[in-house]
Amino acid sequence: MSIPQAKQMRRAYGFDEVAIVPGDLTVNPAMTEVGFRIDQMEFSLPIMASAMDAVVDPDFAIAFSKLGGLAVLNLEGVQTRYDDPASVLEEIAAASRQDSTTLLQKAYAPPIKPELISERIREIKSADGVCAVSCTPANAKAFAPIVKDANADALVIQSTVTTARHTSYSEKGLTFPELVKQMQPMPVIVGNTVSYGACKELMEAGVAAVQVGVGPGSACTSREVLGIGVPQVTATMDCAAARDQYYRESGRYVPIITDGGIRSGGDLCKAFASGADAVMLGSVLAACEEAPGGGHHWGMATPNADLPRGIRVEVGVDTTLQRVIHGPTSRTNGTENLIGALRTAMGMCGARTIRDFQQAELVVAPSIKTEGKQIQAAQR
Amino acid sequence: MSIPQAKQMRRAYGFDEVAIVPGDLTVNPAMTEVGFRIDQMEFSLPIMASAMDAVVDPDFAIAFSKLGGLAVLNLEGVQTRYDDPASVLEEIAAASRQDSTTLLQKAYAPPIKPELISERIREIKSADGVCAVSCTPANAKAFAPIVKDANADALVIQSTVTTARHTSYSEKGLTFPELVKQMQPMPVIVGNTVSYGACKELMEAGVAAVQVGVGPGSACTSREVLGIGVPQVTATMDCAAARDQYYRESGRYVPIITDGGIRSGGDLCKAFASGADAVMLGSVLAACEEAPGGGHHWGMATPNADLPRGIRVEVGVDTTLQRVIHGPTSRTNGTENLIGALRTAMGMCGARTIRDFQQAELVVAPSIKTEGKQIQAAQR
Amino acid sequence: MSIPQAKQMRRAYGFDEVAIVPGDLTVNPAMTEVGFRIDQMEFSLPIMASAMDAVVDPDFAIAFSKLGGLAVLNLEGVQTRYDDPASVLEEIAAASRQDSTTLLQKAYAPPIKPELISERIREIKSADGVCAVSCTPANAKAFAPIVKDANADALVIQSTVTTARHTSYSEKGLTFPELVKQMQPMPVIVGNTVSYGACKELMEAGVAAVQVGVGPGSACTSREVLGIGVPQVTATMDCAAARDQYYRESGRYVPIITDGGIRSGGDLCKAFASGADAVMLGSVLAACEEAPGGGHHWGMATPNADLPRGIRVEVGVDTTLQRVIHGPTSRTNGTENLIGALRTAMGMCGARTIRDFQQAELVVAPSIKTEGKQIQAAQR
Amino acid sequence: MSIPQAKQMRRAYGFDEVAIVPGDLTVNPAMTEVGFRIDQMEFSLPIMASAMDAVVDPDFAIAFSKLGGLAVLNLEGVQTRYDDPASVLEEIAAASRQDSTTLLQKAYAPPIKPELISERIREIKSADGVCAVSCTPANAKAFAPIVKDANADALVIQSTVTTARHTSYSEKGLTFPELVKQMQPMPVIVGNTVSYGACKELMEAGVAAVQVGVGPGSACTSREVLGIGVPQVTATMDCAAARDQYYRESGRYVPIITDGGIRSGGDLCKAFASGADAVMLGSVLAACEEAPGGGHHWGMATPNADLPRGIRVEVGVDTTLQRVIHGPTSRTNGTENLIGALRTAMGMCGARTIRDFQQAELVVAPSIKTEGKQIQAAQR
Repeated sequence: MSIPQAKQMRRAYGFDEVAIVPGDLTVNPAMTEVGFRIDQMEFSLPIMASAMDAVVDPDFAIAFSKLGGLAVLNLEGVQTRYDDPASVLEEIAAASRQDSTTLLQKAYAPPIKPELISERIREIKSADGVCAVSCTPANAKAFAPIVKDANADALVIQSTVTTARHTSYSEKGLTFPELVKQMQPMPVIVGNTVSYGACKELMEAGVAAVQVGVGPGSACTSREVLGIGVPQVTATMDCAAARDQYYRESGRYVPIITDGGIRSGGDLCKAFASGADAVMLGSVLAACEEAPGGGHHWGMATPNADLPRGIRVEVGVDTTLQRVIHGPTSRTNGTENLIGALRTAMGMCGARTIRDFQQAELVVAPSIKTEGKQIQAAQR
Repeated sequence: MSIPQAKQMRRAYGFDEVAIVPGDLTVNPAMTEVGFRIDQMEFSLPIMASAMDAVVDPDFAIAFSKLGGLAVLNLEGVQTRYDDPASVLEEIAAASRQDSTTLLQKAYAPPIKPELISERIREIKSADGVCAVSCTPANAKAFAPIVKDANADALVIQSTVTTARHTSYSEKGLTFPELVKQMQPMPVIVGNTVSYGACKELMEAGVAAVQVGVGPGSACTSREVLGIGVPQVTATMDCAAARDQYYRESGRYVPIITDGGIRSGGDLCKAFASGADAVMLGSVLAACEEAPGGGHHWGMATPNADLPRGIRVEVGVDTTLQRVIHGPTSRTNGTENLIGALRTAMGMCGARTIRDFQQAELVVAPSIKTEGKQIQAAQR
Repeated sequence: MSIPQAKQMRRAYGFDEVAIVPGDLTVNPAMTEVGFRIDQMEFSLPIMASAMDAVVDPDFAIAFSKLGGLAVLNLEGVQTRYDDPASVLEEIAAASRQDSTTLLQKAYAPPIKPELISERIREIKSADGVCAVSCTPANAKAFAPIVKDANADALVIQSTVTTARHTSYSEKGLTFPELVKQMQPMPVIVGNTVSYGACKELMEAGVAAVQVGVGPGSACTSREVLGIGVPQVTATMDCAAARDQYYRESGRYVPIITDGGIRSGGDLCKAFASGADAVMLGSVLAACEEAPGGGHHWGMATPNADLPRGIRVEVGVDTTLQRVIHGPTSRTNGTENLIGALRTAMGMCGARTIRDFQQAELVVAPSIKTEGKQIQAAQR
Repeated sequence: MSIPQAKQMRRAYGFDEVAIVPGDLTVNPAMTEVGFRIDQMEFSLPIMASAMDAVVDPDFAIAFSKLGGLAVLNLEGVQTRYDDPASVLEEIAAASRQDSTTLLQKAYAPPIKPELISERIREIKSADGVCAVSCTPANAKAFAPIVKDANADALVIQSTVTTARHTSYSEKGLTFPELVKQMQPMPVIVGNTVSYGACKELMEAGVAAVQVGVGPGSACTSREVLGIGVPQVTATMDCAAARDQYYRESGRYVPIITDGGIRSGGDLCKAFASGADAVMLGSVLAACEEAPGGGHHWGMATPNADLPRGIRVEVGVDTTLQRVIHGPTSRTNGTENLIGALRTAMGMCGARTIRDFQQAELVVAPSIKTEGKQIQAAQR
């Protein structure tokens, strides 16, 4: 039956539903290039560390920076609310599962101390770390001058969903063109977004990079609470199309960073093959000895006082940054030697650069594991 | 191979298979409007409480009414068969699972006492509650005058599947245009339906609102027993298209109420994004302290003497109406602060009104949870 | 990428993947007609009992016949190999699961005794039962005269896959036109098939009815062993299209019987809505007190000496023929009161006859059960 | 919404997602022909044994050869690194699951001894076995002369992904046309590949046969680690299209061998119906008494020192080569009597030859098992 003007829906895909097709030519993995660039900043790793309190503290930022990546420090979490955040993190790690959300709500209730913003940035910079910091749009006006004075390297404006056009009661809200101008030459990175239109508008507003991803993170329950979210492969493809179109129109290349839901080398490779310029990792890094979460992981929407939209996830502490990024490893589940995995996959697709790898063919191929594999997986 | 005149099937979608795409603009949640209107009646909440004995008794109707919603009292359940329904409800709650269907069949065997219809309506009205009551089409002729005399606010005619054209042995069956005229100015709400054609015909018959949903309720086994049912997202989209088409043709706006299968804020938001004007909740409300079910929940088809089509579901009693509707909450699974969730999701989609939110983009995106999430979920 | 002449595949659907859409009009269930007809034979029930040793013995055939259905006695099982089949059936029921296939292979090794064919038919006829018997194509030539002499009512020629065109070493194989002529006026029913072409050719060969279904039965492992099988909804739709096309061409209406995979009233209703004229039940009937399987169920391919393609399934003995067919029931999972379910579903679709019900709309709608339902289901 | 130049994805299918449709005619299984041919070599079985250390050692190769199949000995595993490989295999079998990958990495660290290559080939040839051996492209130049001198029957060049065009730092890499010429008249088989283009280029390079499959093997975790892999049905269909196109263009028929993920007769039959000329088995054969793995199974990517991409799978030892290939059997899960299953399925599709069987119709039909079947399966 035909129904007049019935609503249409596209199919959207996540990492578990697609696979990369090897290429018609192959390249020696040692010949591949995996660098990443935001404006004038160059990184040897195309990997960012999430602005989550269980992942990044100043020490982690310094260590991650030395490996060639970019870690983002959250300016609205425990690092800027407490002079001694370590003890609060310990308390969170020690809480039972059923109390964890209530405790997180309480731990994030005290106000942010502006002086701690400068202090944390200085800690990172004084150890020669590259320092990126993040806040929500609501705090951008207040925090931006502090961040600029403290000489951070990049400012990330981040909320669950951020657009270039936001309507609120406040007379004069934040506009990204103004913020970008104010921070110059410091790059302003904005997220998160998932759609072609919203992503392109952010690029037109002058931002230096865009974070892609709403809903897929391992600690995020936006899908359950709000029904909102787009699986990462489709979100990345749509935003990559926006980036390429904006580049054709403007000549400026604004990289996109796939943020959320990457749990293995396979996911990471699929993010690039979907069009990402870099990826942002949360739970994978939270399991490193260097991470401050003590084997736990939670997102910034979890401590929300009225409507928490995330859970504290137990990730354990069973690896190191070095092994996660460069290996070597004896694990076969793709959680260590991510750069080795990326180079190997690029080689199999005949991609010398990440820009080449973005052109790799993907197929829709749900991961149907054999019984044997599942049993083994469960027992690992 | 091409097969002459082979039967065609459309794909239909349920809540778990879709997700809402954030908008290209965003709005402050505090600026959203979530009211609902049936004819001249206005409600601050776009939420109705199901005409189920485990959800609505007169006290619940009064409490729900005070929060701004509309509860429907079932006129064919224990409230009108027993002078003291509370003791029967206790007996049902105390039954073992294997005996529950047999007990329900027995509990619903005694005849309905017409005087209790008036009595229950009076109970609600005397406490200033808004009073909606429901009966099946078979009893509509007999009960309508009683309901009118008792001065109820709305009459709901409801069965698993109700159409404007029903064929039966009785010489002169119910017709909706006559009933609508007879009850004026009291609005007549009719359900349930799931298809464009049947929904539009009900609107053309003059009803004030239409309930949408066959099969998806948590206590309903119509799919197993009869094979009949349409997943709620598609059912809502099709009926919303009927509403919009009828509005274009007639200038009269007949709201649709998505009824069944909503278990979280995510589901509720998806119902509106699919085109609903309001939602009807059953099991979610049955878990409130104010509900009469004592932690259990069952549908009206369960007590059927020959062919029960539902089960008694254990929902527990672990929340309150206030927390379910307005929060605050420390739960992260979307079962509390539904209005907060609705406003937040509307804000992320740049929707100021529910009519705007009906235009939000949806994608087909099966909820594939990561292993970590599933384990956590199982342990909550 | 476009690939020259790459193989194409259609999507095929099973019962669990579809749902029936209610109609735009409804009919009182008491006004529906559910009769079934093969040539001149009329049945008040559109249900056949499978030619499986755990389902049909002479006593079951008589009882089922009295209820208005047609049971088929297997001429190649224990009933024609043993003078006292009951003791063999007991032995099979008593075997442990791991020994069951080996024991079945042994139990079916003794030769078929032709005199028992006549004897079993006489047992059924002498009690006024309608008597249908089945054999494989390989035995049709030898058994047909015996069956005719013994005055059975219908002959079923059945194997996993039967076509009108079979190539073998034997000089002069069976042809259906000859067999049909030889048996006249006794109707010859043939199965199983699943495709439009093969079904139409069988009809053109003059058979009285066609059984549809390869692979879906609960005791069948053809999919695992051979990779062969077509889900029942698509198989039924394709064969119904063949029936309708053959009817348009020839004026002769050859009913199709959906055979295999029907476990509930929901499945049964979907078979009719897919186009079936009748259904064949196995495991559902094997659970009746009247069935000879003692709570077990197995197919005719299980005892194959070299390549068994089925398993002995435990179904329990927890109901009666009367309750399965006509109820009443307190079960809510659709395994009792199948005719009540059929009439109710027909009413909801506005179908007075099965021929009307074949026109009901179906949607593709995978049965995603809520957590709550699954838990309850598991505990029942 | 339409998105300019958004990336497109095809759907790819695996064995569990498809089923074979019976034909419109049928053939006696005894009349089917199942031979296989590579260049001038003819085999009565269309089955190859994987070049995996848990499957093929010289004794297994001899036994498999006598049954009419072709086993491939891995020249880069324990057989060529150790004078006494049996003791290393025992050590691997004895390792606990958590230590298995580390142990495999250690076991494959010692260098390959060229003299053992000749020795192993001689062991097989001296017992009149057909001898195929395999190495990676990196070792092809070095090993090819040894293999030729030792008079092997076929050389397999195999890696996870092999293409005709590989870029590396080495001045003068391997080219397949040169290798093919150098080895003449010994056939050179190359794998693995999954795409139309890459497969056709390999055929154009003159190879004698192509192995198809990246990712689906039971011991392979390429999907998790690299995100790379194509389900076998689609991979086989695409490569079969390449074979047929190359045959139309060149007149040379280059067979394709589906390698990986075949766990039952059903999978094997689907591989042929998808277009395969032969299949390669790993884990199914590893469970035979004749296999050297002692009930375990692992792939060649598992021992990788930096990035292992496979696991040691426990398969048990519970059958024999004779029973797996020719039966008879009492198993009903399709793991024994594979040739019986193949002939039976071919008969049901009216296919006399494998070339005919490649034309069988396939449908997309996810294997949704009934609850009963799953329970039984779990208990077997």
